[in-house]
Amino acid sequence: MSPTLTAKAPRRPPSKQVPDKDTAPMNATAAKLLVAAGDLMIERNSTEVSLSEIAQKSGVNAALVKYHFGNKDGLLLALLARDAASEMANLAFVLDQPISPTEKMRRHIAGIINAYYRVPYLSRLIHLLLHQGSEETSKEVHRFFINPLFDFVRGLLEQGVEAGEFRKVDPALFYISLNGACDNLFYGRQMNARFLGSKGITDEVRRQYIGHMTTLFLGGLLTDKAGMPSDMERPSTAKT
Amino acid sequence: MSPTLTAKAPRRPPSKQVPDKDTAPMNATAAKLLVAAGDLMIERNSTEVSLSEIAQKSGVNAALVKYHFGNKDGLLLALLARDAASEMANLAFVLDQPISPTEKMRRHIAGIINAYYRVPYLSRLIHLLLHQGSEETSKEVHRFFINPLFDFVRGLLEQGVEAGEFRKVDPALFYISLNGACDNLFYGRQMNARFLGSKGITDEVRRQYIGHMTTLFLGGLLTDKAGMPSDMERPSTAKT
Repeated sequence: MSPTLTAKAPRRPPSKQVPDKDTAPMNATAAKLLVAAGDLMIERNSTEVSLSEIAQKSGVNAALVKYHFGNKDGLLLALLARDAASEMANLAFVLDQPISPTEKMRRHIAGIINAYYRVPYLSRLIHLLLHQGSEETSKEVHRFFINPLFDFVRGLLEQGVEAGEFRKVDPALFYISLNGACDNLFYGRQMNARFLGSKGITDEVRRQYIGHMTTLFLGGLLTDKAGMPSDMERPSTAKT
Repeated sequence: MSPTLTAKAPRRPPSKQVPDKDTAPMNATAAKLLVAAGDLMIERNSTEVSLSEIAQKSGVNAALVKYHFGNKDGLLLALLARDAASEMANLAFVLDQPISPTEKMRRHIAGIINAYYRVPYLSRLIHLLLHQGSEETSKEVHRFFINPLFDFVRGLLEQGVEAGEFRKVDPALFYISLNGACDNLFYGRQMNARFLGSKGITDEVRRQYIGHMTTLFLGGLLTDKAGMPSDMERPSTAKT
């Protein structure tokens, strides 16, 4: 395996310049602004919302946005941190659970898809921060979101190989393919409407995609498919 | 399987309003403008190029952009059509080849990744047209690009099930997961630099990703892994 692909993602301590917003208790006014931002994105089915619109909807003076978050990227980062908080907190817990690596991976795949489903703007918010934000913003997304997720996947893949359940795969390539596949259902929402029918991503589609992704990725990862629970061996069961 | 997920993607004849740019022979001036647009995107490592910059680089009068393509979306659509032309022309040919469905799927996966690799802006161009273009632009991308690709995948999945090589999967969900996974290596280029090393997507990474994706997706798709060629059974062979 190439050393370039197994390089450890940099794990650095929280930067001194950036307050650790994802763990510090949140001020009530700041929380109000985040609620308004999330609600606006859901109402509009778009992440294009301005600071003045957010301030107006929350009833908070626009000047306080700057006070609490510095700028718009700061507010969007805090929104991502809020929405991903429970998943991120859960990662270390899942890794230590007394269940098989296969079962952990299954829960992880379902967890990603459920998070995107529950927060309809999550996928677009991540794209916005990574592709249109500053270098500093992108680094911050990596610090509290992408790096911990990648570390979790790498740790889980190691557990699976040690247990003899997973074949050896490159963690970076696996991470990229898993997240790209999960994201594409949601990011390409309008685009996928043609394939998914006019109702879009219903709860049934969510369940079907979890079944599809679990069978596909575990099928490609497991050393022995016979080890899969029966509802994963027969996709027709998982999908109806 | 849910009927909403197996609905046939609309296959309509080329619209009368939109000239069939993807098959008509191209005017030399129009071709020059496309070369300039593609070169600029590669030089800048960005799809953000203005019409006047494209005109200037090509040495063509800016007024002719409007004459040949109508507007910027028209030019970008023609660029996508040009860059995807050989892959699109190849689809029908591959489906009729006297090789197994497994081998066809293997070539298709490699074909997608190679296309993204060969044209460094391709992934971002598709995102730009689908997510920031007009409704009409998105429809046009579907007409000459997405619908034929989806039809190909659906046809290939049917062939594989008939041959007893593939288990039955929903073609829409499979299409979404395959394309999302392939795209994510390239679209998240800057983002993935942390995982892939500072050299980014080298030819070695391209080969490794083809090996990874082929093993993963065929592993999840095939009814019997023993039917895979030996270089797919052992990912370590494909990846070094």
